[in-house]
Amino acid sequence: MTTIAFLGPAGTFAEAALRTLPISDNAELIAAGSTPAALDMARHGQVDYALVPIESSVEGSVPLTLDGLATGSPLVIVDEAVQQVSFALMARPGVELADITRIAAHPHAQAQVRSWLAANVPGAQVIDAHSNGAAAAGLAEGTYDAAIGAAIAAQIYGLQILADAIEDTADAMTRFVLVTRPGTLPAPTGADKTTLTLFIHQDTPGALLSILTEFAVRGVNLTRIESRPTRKSLGDYSFSIDIEGHIADARVSEALMGLHRICLDVRFLGSYPRHDGKAPVLRTGVTDVDFAEAQTWLDHVKENS
Amino acid sequence: MTTIAFLGPAGTFAEAALRTLPISDNAELIAAGSTPAALDMARHGQVDYALVPIESSVEGSVPLTLDGLATGSPLVIVDEAVQQVSFALMARPGVELADITRIAAHPHAQAQVRSWLAANVPGAQVIDAHSNGAAAAGLAEGTYDAAIGAAIAAQIYGLQILADAIEDTADAMTRFVLVTRPGTLPAPTGADKTTLTLFIHQDTPGALLSILTEFAVRGVNLTRIESRPTRKSLGDYSFSIDIEGHIADARVSEALMGLHRICLDVRFLGSYPRHDGKAPVLRTGVTDVDFAEAQTWLDHVKENS
Amino acid sequence: MTTIAFLGPAGTFAEAALRTLPISDNAELIAAGSTPAALDMARHGQVDYALVPIESSVEGSVPLTLDGLATGSPLVIVDEAVQQVSFALMARPGVELADITRIAAHPHAQAQVRSWLAANVPGAQVIDAHSNGAAAAGLAEGTYDAAIGAAIAAQIYGLQILADAIEDTADAMTRFVLVTRPGTLPAPTGADKTTLTLFIHQDTPGALLSILTEFAVRGVNLTRIESRPTRKSLGDYSFSIDIEGHIADARVSEALMGLHRICLDVRFLGSYPRHDGKAPVLRTGVTDVDFAEAQTWLDHVKENS
Amino acid sequence: MTTIAFLGPAGTFAEAALRTLPISDNAELIAAGSTPAALDMARHGQVDYALVPIESSVEGSVPLTLDGLATGSPLVIVDEAVQQVSFALMARPGVELADITRIAAHPHAQAQVRSWLAANVPGAQVIDAHSNGAAAAGLAEGTYDAAIGAAIAAQIYGLQILADAIEDTADAMTRFVLVTRPGTLPAPTGADKTTLTLFIHQDTPGALLSILTEFAVRGVNLTRIESRPTRKSLGDYSFSIDIEGHIADARVSEALMGLHRICLDVRFLGSYPRHDGKAPVLRTGVTDVDFAEAQTWLDHVKENS
Repeated sequence: MTTIAFLGPAGTFAEAALRTLPISDNAELIAAGSTPAALDMARHGQVDYALVPIESSVEGSVPLTLDGLATGSPLVIVDEAVQQVSFALMARPGVELADITRIAAHPHAQAQVRSWLAANVPGAQVIDAHSNGAAAAGLAEGTYDAAIGAAIAAQIYGLQILADAIEDTADAMTRFVLVTRPGTLPAPTGADKTTLTLFIHQDTPGALLSILTEFAVRGVNLTRIESRPTRKSLGDYSFSIDIEGHIADARVSEALMGLHRICLDVRFLGSYPRHDGKAPVLRTGVTDVDFAEAQTWLDHVKENS
Repeated sequence: MTTIAFLGPAGTFAEAALRTLPISDNAELIAAGSTPAALDMARHGQVDYALVPIESSVEGSVPLTLDGLATGSPLVIVDEAVQQVSFALMARPGVELADITRIAAHPHAQAQVRSWLAANVPGAQVIDAHSNGAAAAGLAEGTYDAAIGAAIAAQIYGLQILADAIEDTADAMTRFVLVTRPGTLPAPTGADKTTLTLFIHQDTPGALLSILTEFAVRGVNLTRIESRPTRKSLGDYSFSIDIEGHIADARVSEALMGLHRICLDVRFLGSYPRHDGKAPVLRTGVTDVDFAEAQTWLDHVKENS
Repeated sequence: MTTIAFLGPAGTFAEAALRTLPISDNAELIAAGSTPAALDMARHGQVDYALVPIESSVEGSVPLTLDGLATGSPLVIVDEAVQQVSFALMARPGVELADITRIAAHPHAQAQVRSWLAANVPGAQVIDAHSNGAAAAGLAEGTYDAAIGAAIAAQIYGLQILADAIEDTADAMTRFVLVTRPGTLPAPTGADKTTLTLFIHQDTPGALLSILTEFAVRGVNLTRIESRPTRKSLGDYSFSIDIEGHIADARVSEALMGLHRICLDVRFLGSYPRHDGKAPVLRTGVTDVDFAEAQTWLDHVKENS
Repeated sequence: MTTIAFLGPAGTFAEAALRTLPISDNAELIAAGSTPAALDMARHGQVDYALVPIESSVEGSVPLTLDGLATGSPLVIVDEAVQQVSFALMARPGVELADITRIAAHPHAQAQVRSWLAANVPGAQVIDAHSNGAAAAGLAEGTYDAAIGAAIAAQIYGLQILADAIEDTADAMTRFVLVTRPGTLPAPTGADKTTLTLFIHQDTPGALLSILTEFAVRGVNLTRIESRPTRKSLGDYSFSIDIEGHIADARVSEALMGLHRICLDVRFLGSYPRHDGKAPVLRTGVTDVDFAEAQTWLDHVKENS
């Protein structure tokens, strides 16, 4: 049976996201205590896959995931899921809004429901929790009066929902990636993404411009770029990048080889189907057919010159 | 009397960093409960300045600071300080290493002392604290046996240091910025930095390449670039950027105007002296003298053609 | 009375082109013996203007003009004219096609009528002449049986036209420029061109790429680029360039100053209305209004930071 | 026996250049009447090779050669020769400087000896000749008193040299190329050049910038670039380009394929050893070893992901 770790505890958005992927249907889903823990379980073969958050439309990239994939023994992304992040205010059965004086919430969640709390429970104290699931679990144990988190947690912990969709920003989204040990590169679908970590030579002022030019000259579009510290010194960065396309696409292959030549290191973190199935809009001259024709032409020229 | 808020509580690295700035000498230093709280105090005139962390060589950028400066009423950076981040294991007087079973530490701190703890107190439970200062404060109150944090906290809370410099990565640094309400742009020193937030037009694949080209063509070097979500939708980013030079430098002025023309919005977050006093290495043709000569030449050509 | 020299003798395409410019209406038109001679007459004040060919859609740029403008005391272009180049076969009255055994033509003209001659007068000897006008003049003097050139020459020299429009390439065009001593920069019309000669620092592999980037980053389009030897050593080039826009346009001004900073020398050769009145298609952010708004924004930021 | 046509008549710099190439040692050298004639002889198999001038440090590119190679059935360059261009004033035996009233010279030659003539034979009339060799031949026939050209012509036509090295610009050079029908691509030597003609899609403002970027991103340096009209319409250009490197070099191969994808047409005109044996200075990451390593890395990643 397929086993998949996710960023637990049960009832977080990670579990909800995981359940949108067909692979979860007959799989055993295992809540991990943290993102590094989930990644380690996949690395050490304790599970087949791990699902971890990589970026949020509200909070930005998830450093623990970026750094966890960029270092250590290799893991590759084989799928992604995007989950709308909607917050509910939950309490134990019988508790009413007027009774609430102490609310537990992860700081990210707090940031997203600030306006609603100010308007509806202005006097309540808000207490930091280490995850949305932990807030719900603590609430079930009686530590506070209410908790903020994914509505799915109410079912899991036997809570009632006092108010739903209380977030200030509608349509907040979190993107999760499904990672595994290398060996099962997904086939290209025509609507793929590739994730990379690029380590540059230090003190090279134009390094990022060079990187972007390697992509641009082959018509490869970026969809995400994050700088991350390398932990060596202040101002020494690596770049976590998502591009449109699959490593099997000629334009992506050639760009990757170009990056390999100018970077200190290129870490390939997987090619996988886009969750939205959106095919890239390619400029003239960069399809696989264009690359193949150029190779045929070059071979012909070389043989006949 | 000058008042300066810093990311408290007392005894954090923020306070240590602040005390390296001359402006702190005769100022009243006020511990704020969080980065947003410190920024708000400066915004609302409750303090003259606020000192907040902006990036760490280990953890990367500090989203709360980047986002806090990028939105809301304007604040500008007028100085920076870099603080070596070194961790001490502290306990109440009389407690010895062998007695320790519960240690409080901020998760970032935990990540940086993991090897030392595994080797020296393998059996101890490590408990999350919300800041290094909070761990020390809680320790003073008797909540745990030990706490990890800046050595300065030992003095403040009457603790003893059981082990110093226990971090796994030597020379970990955190950079702090001193912000204030606009109106006191520091004079150029020849070794300055400028901080910007750039909002790009969505769905513009080459936008980042265009931004970097605006800088490169005027010989302006970047020292930091971070993408941040705009909270509008997944994949919609702004860029937080530090460049070498002062807004009063001609090459910086022209680059800023170029960015203003191609970006949705450019938010100027201050020009200020570099903490290390390191002057930029400029390529030929981009000094203020070069810009002035080009203007003189153009004026001459226009009048005489 | 205005005096204008043109590349003579009478009856060349230069004269036909000059007569399309309103300035020629009440002017004295003076045939010069060569392009350098015409330029020298303008330089020394013997004439007010000189009209010389700068490029041909068939033969390419005219080195004598490019080099003549790039060196020596300054001359600037104030207008341009484009003349369709159509060739006639002319003979003295009474001579018929069957009688022709020796035909005079400038080598450029020969190249353009080769097919017609092969089909219609296959046995005739073709003799080099130094200009189309010279061929007609020599014909009038009886040196050969026929001449090839502009039909206008038939009137001037009392010749008959045996065949008209005999050129192999229809719509061949030559562009002429009207030059004068500096001092009368034409006003911008919104559909202007600017001509430059750029001298680069030798042994700078990326110099041309840098030049093109200075234009591209300000949205300035090139309509012509020619490399010319500097006469110093093989492989040492200058670039003769036409761009869309007027030196009074902000994007052009800023690009010129950028070039002045990176080039060994920039020679401004005039801003003048395009013969076809075609306004440039500008990308977002590079109109004069955009530049003015960016300056206003920068001034505001500087004063309020 | 190898047969080689050159731009005649005998006694021109072309012959002198040809004699510097080892291939000429036991070959039959045949003077052609013009550059197109020499190229046609090679095209039609009347000779094995043709040597034609391609650029001059004084006059610039030679349009007849550029256009002759860019169109028609394929010819490729297999070698090059650079000849110092030095002019002698020649006369029939017994004629002295004071006797000279009429001097024949090609206009290019006239341009290069103008100062000497003005100082030494100020009153003489200068007559246009169609080549330096033709001037010497005509002199031998008694048409004028003196001729200007390569000193080699004096031997060939039985003339005496009245003054040698009379050129105004010392070290003027002309570069010649040896062309042949395709089929004998010279082996790479490590110090090679490749010549191309690039036809771009019309009305593409950034086309030249794109072309230069294709080269730059693979570390390929240009040594010559000429725009040439395509004869279709004014402002429609092709580009004649020399680059450092051989088509067998990986960086050149990849750049050529890149150009093939973005250009209307790429015409390969040969890879051949540089006359000066100067190896290119390559930036990091673009040697054949770098390309091979990148391919190995990519293959490894693809197989193991």
